[in-house]
Amino acid sequence: MLVTNGKKIFKLCQTDAVYVSTETLMRYITGFEAENGFIIVDKDGTTLFTDKRYIEAAEKLFQGTDVTPVLFKQNEAIERLAKYKMVGISFRSTTLSEFEMLKKCGAEFKNVDSALTQAIIVKNEWEMENIQKACEIAEKAFIATLPHIKEGMTETQVAAMLEYNMRSLGAEGTSFATICAFGAHAAIPHHVTGETPLKFGDEILLDFGCKVNGYCSDITRTVLFGDDGKHEEFKKAYDAVLTAHNLVQENLRAGMTGVEADAIARNYLKEKGYGELFTHSLGHGIGLNVHEMPSVSPKGESALLDGMVFSDEPGVYVAGEYGIRIEDTVTLENGRVKSFMSLTDKKLVIL
Amino acid sequence: MLVTNGKKIFKLCQTDAVYVSTETLMRYITGFEAENGFIIVDKDGTTLFTDKRYIEAAEKLFQGTDVTPVLFKQNEAIERLAKYKMVGISFRSTTLSEFEMLKKCGAEFKNVDSALTQAIIVKNEWEMENIQKACEIAEKAFIATLPHIKEGMTETQVAAMLEYNMRSLGAEGTSFATICAFGAHAAIPHHVTGETPLKFGDEILLDFGCKVNGYCSDITRTVLFGDDGKHEEFKKAYDAVLTAHNLVQENLRAGMTGVEADAIARNYLKEKGYGELFTHSLGHGIGLNVHEMPSVSPKGESALLDGMVFSDEPGVYVAGEYGIRIEDTVTLENGRVKSFMSLTDKKLVIL
Repeated sequence: MLVTNGKKIFKLCQTDAVYVSTETLMRYITGFEAENGFIIVDKDGTTLFTDKRYIEAAEKLFQGTDVTPVLFKQNEAIERLAKYKMVGISFRSTTLSEFEMLKKCGAEFKNVDSALTQAIIVKNEWEMENIQKACEIAEKAFIATLPHIKEGMTETQVAAMLEYNMRSLGAEGTSFATICAFGAHAAIPHHVTGETPLKFGDEILLDFGCKVNGYCSDITRTVLFGDDGKHEEFKKAYDAVLTAHNLVQENLRAGMTGVEADAIARNYLKEKGYGELFTHSLGHGIGLNVHEMPSVSPKGESALLDGMVFSDEPGVYVAGEYGIRIEDTVTLENGRVKSFMSLTDKKLVIL
Repeated sequence: MLVTNGKKIFKLCQTDAVYVSTETLMRYITGFEAENGFIIVDKDGTTLFTDKRYIEAAEKLFQGTDVTPVLFKQNEAIERLAKYKMVGISFRSTTLSEFEMLKKCGAEFKNVDSALTQAIIVKNEWEMENIQKACEIAEKAFIATLPHIKEGMTETQVAAMLEYNMRSLGAEGTSFATICAFGAHAAIPHHVTGETPLKFGDEILLDFGCKVNGYCSDITRTVLFGDDGKHEEFKKAYDAVLTAHNLVQENLRAGMTGVEADAIARNYLKEKGYGELFTHSLGHGIGLNVHEMPSVSPKGESALLDGMVFSDEPGVYVAGEYGIRIEDTVTLENGRVKSFMSLTDKKLVIL
């Protein structure tokens, strides 16, 4: 059931009111998706100002919650904000044009970005449910796609089928443009899916995810399309990446920093001689944005805490030869890692 | 072939340099998609600052063009902008946080939003090619989907199939979440596609589009899934909407305002008794954004000119009963309307 975040935001921001108007922040606070409008949170609750396209659906959704939907009028924000002394806004998402308009209300403005980040980084049960569903759909779609992958299909066709399966299973859409990389393309971490046809013996790297109520999943799997006997190096590296991925899930504890989490995988890969080939961070936060806080990287100085959601995605890349990445979306619960992905065991699949 | 927009922007903005950093504006100027970085345009050309994920692809793409890709360094924007007296930025897309950073360069800043809009609103040949392709894919996907629509399928399943067909035909993704509305759901212009199953005699409204190199198509078609003999009112209204849609394509001329264009359809629908039931604007601009300028509505005071791209989408909605919308993406060429959609004749289809 919908759990709104207005109270949490208000408590952390320490202002008379909080004003937000970006789609993502509005959806974060209320769970509701609207292209247009704004939200004011104050001690009395959350007010969602939206247009006639959305008002009926909003009234239905917010019955019995602390959110009051109101039909939006021209310049309403200025009027409504005039009664507060100190209004919290996100400097990271308020544009200069919008600020010019807001200033007319006469209130003082405070940058509440760090309070917003602090709120957003720890997920409530409703957010967790959506992420869990998005992860299940992604895994099920992967399982449903594998038997249909045939020689000669293009990267785009495989991506299209995977996306079709996610959509059919109830996803709203993808978290990001699906990466499907055949053969040496997998060595490019941000490969653009194209028209290359699949050949016997190619590896296939799939990095994808979908959205449920706006919340994202993010998963990567690497498989072989037939074994042409030339994959010894690949298989050795696959084992190392999988072990690094699993070590994180076994040994990461709440309270460790992003640096420490990243080091679990990085140190193991170094030991195995792959240190230089793990060219990116271990992970990133996942929520309404597929990339958000926390940082799970050599630069992530903050502690990882229960209720945060992030990726565990070590990788090894050899330009022109192969690339391996194994990624789950995970959370911390009772101090330990819980993966949202439990339907695939991640042992190397040979199609 | 890629035609970049740096020179056009520089000429219109009338500043020593123009700085942009949003994905859409960066893509508009260079045609290149990067999640991170910024662009400076000055009298010597366009410089794209991006990170190591994109630099190789950028160097390849920009050979022989006026764009120089450069590997991005921390705080580089401040250094690079320090040599200019007056820098143009978009107040509509620069955030307060970014502006705090930019100010350190010591230059003066000018809001160039109106110059940017003036540039973006008229498409060059490369942009037109992409929009043409995105429109062809959307129409072909619609044609490919129709024979597979069966009783009992859900709105989501039909939307998923349409999206799969667009993706398989080479689209990067959708322009927006596909609207598939069965029966009376079609009366809600922004219906959220759901789990309702298709019944004999239902109408089906499909509003969808896809992207090619970031450029969008937007199309709506309304069809009947079998004729249960209860569709007399619907058919009358369908004819009126189609006539209104066609009248716009026949009679709209470059130089007319958005108001005048909108009135071509609105006056006809009024005449036929549907005035109150046409509850939205005739159209909106289409480009890298699926909704952009020009406004083709009772509020669109600016003239429509050759090279602009927008939608022609009259509709009639009777709550609880039916909804009809027929939409093409069109442009103005030699003063007259040219539709990007030519593969479907828009006579009422009964499946």
